Amino acid sequence: MAIQVIAFDADDTLWVNEPYFQEAETKFCQLLEDYLPHHTVGQELFKTEMQNLALYGYGVKGFMLSMIETALRVTDRTVSLEVIEKALAYGKALLARPIELLEGVEEVLQALQDRYRLVVATKGDLLDQERKLKNSGIEHYFHHVEIMSDKKEADFQKLIRHLDIRPDEFLMLGNSLKSDVLPVLALGGHGIHIPYHTTWAHEHIEHHVDHPHFRQVDTIADILPFLLP
Amino acid sequence: MAIQVIAFDADDTLWVNEPYFQEAETKFCQLLEDYLPHHTVGQELFKTEMQNLALYGYGVKGFMLSMIETALRVTDRTVSLEVIEKALAYGKALLARPIELLEGVEEVLQALQDRYRLVVATKGDLLDQERKLKNSGIEHYFHHVEIMSDKKEADFQKLIRHLDIRPDEFLMLGNSLKSDVLPVLALGGHGIHIPYHTTWAHEHIEHHVDHPHFRQVDTIADILPFLLP
Repeated sequence: MAIQVIAFDADDTLWVNEPYFQEAETKFCQLLEDYLPHHTVGQELFKTEMQNLALYGYGVKGFMLSMIETALRVTDRTVSLEVIEKALAYGKALLARPIELLEGVEEVLQALQDRYRLVVATKGDLLDQERKLKNSGIEHYFHHVEIMSDKKEADFQKLIRHLDIRPDEFLMLGNSLKSDVLPVLALGGHGIHIPYHTTWAHEHIEHHVDHPHFRQVDTIADILPFLLP
Repeated sequence: MAIQVIAFDADDTLWVNEPYFQEAETKFCQLLEDYLPHHTVGQELFKTEMQNLALYGYGVKGFMLSMIETALRVTDRTVSLEVIEKALAYGKALLARPIELLEGVEEVLQALQDRYRLVVATKGDLLDQERKLKNSGIEHYFHHVEIMSDKKEADFQKLIRHLDIRPDEFLMLGNSLKSDVLPVLALGGHGIHIPYHTTWAHEHIEHHVDHPHFRQVDTIADILPFLLP
């Protein structure tokens, strides 16, 4: 492998994210249990999020707006204002939550930093992703941070061009096969999948990947044997 | 002037923006007129926006969340759910609104494109600013688009470094003295102020600029005599 740049997904690859969203969602569903079963509220929230995705993009603010919209809809506009207020509070708490690095992350960055250009490639709210990186204590390992509105082939193509490398010199590493791995493989790049125990339904796919540029590992530390002599 | 790169602010420099926000705000204040005078609601909304700015950043989604929070607060949690629903609808309409280029923009870009590297430097929601640029029909004039979480000196420094030029080879052009001009002048760059008839209170400053790298013009077309032989 002639890899020059290693790009890391951030949420649930470098630090904990999805479990916090699920925690907020669980509390939100509980607030509405008088109206609808927990599971149904969750499904309705997901439906709202998917409907709004093209307009809001990824991130906490869109999640907050979708909680509020869902609360109005599933209660047929009879929801208590306390629920709206709590949805705002849950979202703000997500935005202010301290960063919890995943195990092994810092050691891996340390081990790779002299041999590769390390970058972050993440989607979500611009300011929020910047805040998380800043508070993570690991920002200094990265040559470049790309906060993307989406992670489709065209988005990675732009990033790879920007980095001034060939696709086969690019390795992307993340917890989402759909967003971190498949589009990069399609471009001729390399992908390593590090599944995380919790995956947002939108990112979940059943897919068996068999590709010479692909690997799957259990934890981030498991990538080192492939990348260091 | 040995200017290499001309960076354009987007909202209210390339296309109409603030009047749409003010239209939404006016409608929102009218909804709450039974509770509070129009003007007071506007002040309360601005207060909420400022309190949330560090958490939400700039853009429509934060504006929507701040409208909802304001509606809850100023009515002491007695607001009708219809108001919440309308705040969501006003925000979504902002996000879907077609782009209205300001007069002279396309001619100016056309005239400058062969002589300078043109870039966009804008703050706001990532996806929304991308959408506006895409729908503007002028994206192809720009070598680079920088969507920034803020426009402070450090943010421009990063952009100038990224463009691989000296600060005095950089000209920023926009409707906000505070965000587009002063930080760039402080770095040793050039700034041209093109006031727009409507300015968001947060961007408004009373400031007389007297600086060899500074000019103020009435319309975007007025910059051409300074930039073309």
